[in-house]
Amino acid sequence: MERTFTADLAGHPGRRVRVAGWLHHQRQLARVAFVLIRDAAGIVQVVAEDEGLRARLADLPPETVVDVEGTVTLTDQAPGGLELHDPEVRVLSTPTATMPFELRRPELNAQLPTLLDHAAGALRHPRRRAVARIAAASVAGFRATLDARGFTEVHTPKLVASATETGADVFGVDYFGAPAYLAQSPQFYKQVMVGALERVYEVGPVFRAEPHDTARHLAEYTSLDVELGFVGDHTDVMAVLRDTLAGMVAAVADRAAAAVELLGLALPDVPAQIPRVDFTAAQRMIEAATGVAVVGEPDLAPAHERWIGDWASREHGSDLVFVTGYPQAKRPFYTHPDPARPGFTNSFDLLFRGVELVTGGQRLHRAEDYEAALAGRDTAPLAGYLDAFRYGMPPHGGFAIGLERWVARLTGAANVREVTLFPRDVRRLTP
Amino acid sequence: MERTFTADLAGHPGRRVRVAGWLHHQRQLARVAFVLIRDAAGIVQVVAEDEGLRARLADLPPETVVDVEGTVTLTDQAPGGLELHDPEVRVLSTPTATMPFELRRPELNAQLPTLLDHAAGALRHPRRRAVARIAAASVAGFRATLDARGFTEVHTPKLVASATETGADVFGVDYFGAPAYLAQSPQFYKQVMVGALERVYEVGPVFRAEPHDTARHLAEYTSLDVELGFVGDHTDVMAVLRDTLAGMVAAVADRAAAAVELLGLALPDVPAQIPRVDFTAAQRMIEAATGVAVVGEPDLAPAHERWIGDWASREHGSDLVFVTGYPQAKRPFYTHPDPARPGFTNSFDLLFRGVELVTGGQRLHRAEDYEAALAGRDTAPLAGYLDAFRYGMPPHGGFAIGLERWVARLTGAANVREVTLFPRDVRRLTP
Repeated sequence: MERTFTADLAGHPGRRVRVAGWLHHQRQLARVAFVLIRDAAGIVQVVAEDEGLRARLADLPPETVVDVEGTVTLTDQAPGGLELHDPEVRVLSTPTATMPFELRRPELNAQLPTLLDHAAGALRHPRRRAVARIAAASVAGFRATLDARGFTEVHTPKLVASATETGADVFGVDYFGAPAYLAQSPQFYKQVMVGALERVYEVGPVFRAEPHDTARHLAEYTSLDVELGFVGDHTDVMAVLRDTLAGMVAAVADRAAAAVELLGLALPDVPAQIPRVDFTAAQRMIEAATGVAVVGEPDLAPAHERWIGDWASREHGSDLVFVTGYPQAKRPFYTHPDPARPGFTNSFDLLFRGVELVTGGQRLHRAEDYEAALAGRDTAPLAGYLDAFRYGMPPHGGFAIGLERWVARLTGAANVREVTLFPRDVRRLTP
Repeated sequence: MERTFTADLAGHPGRRVRVAGWLHHQRQLARVAFVLIRDAAGIVQVVAEDEGLRARLADLPPETVVDVEGTVTLTDQAPGGLELHDPEVRVLSTPTATMPFELRRPELNAQLPTLLDHAAGALRHPRRRAVARIAAASVAGFRATLDARGFTEVHTPKLVASATETGADVFGVDYFGAPAYLAQSPQFYKQVMVGALERVYEVGPVFRAEPHDTARHLAEYTSLDVELGFVGDHTDVMAVLRDTLAGMVAAVADRAAAAVELLGLALPDVPAQIPRVDFTAAQRMIEAATGVAVVGEPDLAPAHERWIGDWASREHGSDLVFVTGYPQAKRPFYTHPDPARPGFTNSFDLLFRGVELVTGGQRLHRAEDYEAALAGRDTAPLAGYLDAFRYGMPPHGGFAIGLERWVARLTGAANVREVTLFPRDVRRLTP
């Protein structure tokens, strides 16, 4: 008999079906056993009355993998409105170890390090599965939005000969006896690809040898990178970012509806115009409101990002806010200056509920501007990148979204590790 | 004025439009200049008659980035059936270097190392762009097929504490002062995720410190990985692979139609039942046909794979053929044995036009089988992987498709480097 997923059982009332999954939990009463079977799609209750079967079930530990034939019986009393009666149960495999937490609880009741150490178990919890599905739906929405706008997906190398950005926080690799590095971002390659395809995106791992052990940094994370040519300035990039975020939220609502419901999430509204505030104007507001002198600082502290997030929520009813016009000092060398304001740039960050989620901007596009920006630096390792500008490049720009940070904000996770399948940080390389 | 892509000009006959792109080529005649402008979508001819404009154009080198307003004029004589008249041309940026090949030629006329060294230029050639679009469409088809079958996309770590497969050919990484490796495949993680989500896939980079400099090996490539639970045996996995390949071909035909036409490709037919041949039976056929003793060898040589590919084409009219039942000796430790034939396994390779494209099979799923398979080996680094089996795992299996190898076979490229944006091998780490 073909297997039926638990989510599809409602379409087979009164019929004999076969389900398969993990023994999630069982309750043995005097004359009946209620057994919950968990599969990819959900959980179904199996009702065993036969004495021999009940005795056999009583010996099965949680997470026993089983195959169950039974009759679909609609009933208001069962979770999900139906259960399987007159079951025949076949054991496919038996666990040999017990997890240090119980999957049957609504929430995983253990400390984060325990959950991470036993990821093979913790990831089976319905809430963790829901988070994984929200991440997948987010990426699907990212791609669908960009595909519809003529972008092409690319895969660029993670093994590189030179540090992508600053040279700090890079992992070194022994490359057939020669030194190499893990790419901190696909920045240089996505810019080169604008010369070929104009509009590109990449979903892939990036690596930061980040020595700080914080709740929002990982040594390896998934970056959603976009770059597009023939922009007027950074505001054209921001418009694409706005549409991309709207597409991600829509895909989560559509493709991960059950996960959103299980986690009880309120998805953000992405306004047609995300509110914007100029970097220096934001500093002035913070200074006026808090009395702390911040005007002239080259970047925003996390506390100030939270302040701006609160301001956007209060003044504009928005979970999202753009901060534009960052000083050159803290932006990478390829950032395009603001032609009207020396020392400031055509750049932006997007804050989501008070935390930096996206960084982007317009890039330099003239070969001579790169020569000036890199004056005094050894540009030999960058030859293949600089070629793109020497061969003629249009005005362009782009952005990068940190997937794990996005999912953490969306789900309200306090620590980005809670929403990463197998996180990597200064203290963790396993599992 | 809003920019119009060259592919959309046919919808605006007689209208004034703005296009933007690269000066692909120009011909200056006595009273007229024909200028080809290349954008992401294609190429359009601009006809300049004004003497001052022609003089100005004559000074512009190929790859000058321009913005052109002109009147869409339908004409049978122009490439694509239309051209732009009465143009106004604005230069956006001027190249400062010349490529060592001419993009205007129908084929890139240079040796492979020259093309790879100057990838920022070579990738602009219409044929190379077409290859990139075929790769992107293939991956889109891969995902769409699996999404429709209840698979969830995952992103698993590329920085790992132990070699994934054999321990040979791994790249070492300095991980905050401790030894780490680059993942040779997401094998262990995708199996663990079967325990959580049952059906998963991943598109991501894998790393092989492959010391051989061949036409079909790369040190970093894009692996399309699939794993699914609750299979009967490897034939259930082969059925999913068949559907996935059919979805990839359909997506290439649909989403990269212009690229397929430009390259003049004949896309393979994916039969409802891809022909299958048992490993030992294939060896017997080869021995009978060639007189070379191969029965008893643990693997197929590339020449024998080509022989089987020819056989499938001749006998079954198929570009694709499964070889099943490989000996245990050459398959990884997690391979499920063939219960009926000691020493052989529930495994397969898929050959595409005579070259191995996919490897897959059923995996072991019982904790005790892993203990036996790994007897004598230090399993401490594998603890997080083996937990999945200790916690209860269903029968499962999967496969991995090498994206660059797929695109190479599809496009008829002799060397996988011709279809990789920025290839990495024992001699190449740049650009």
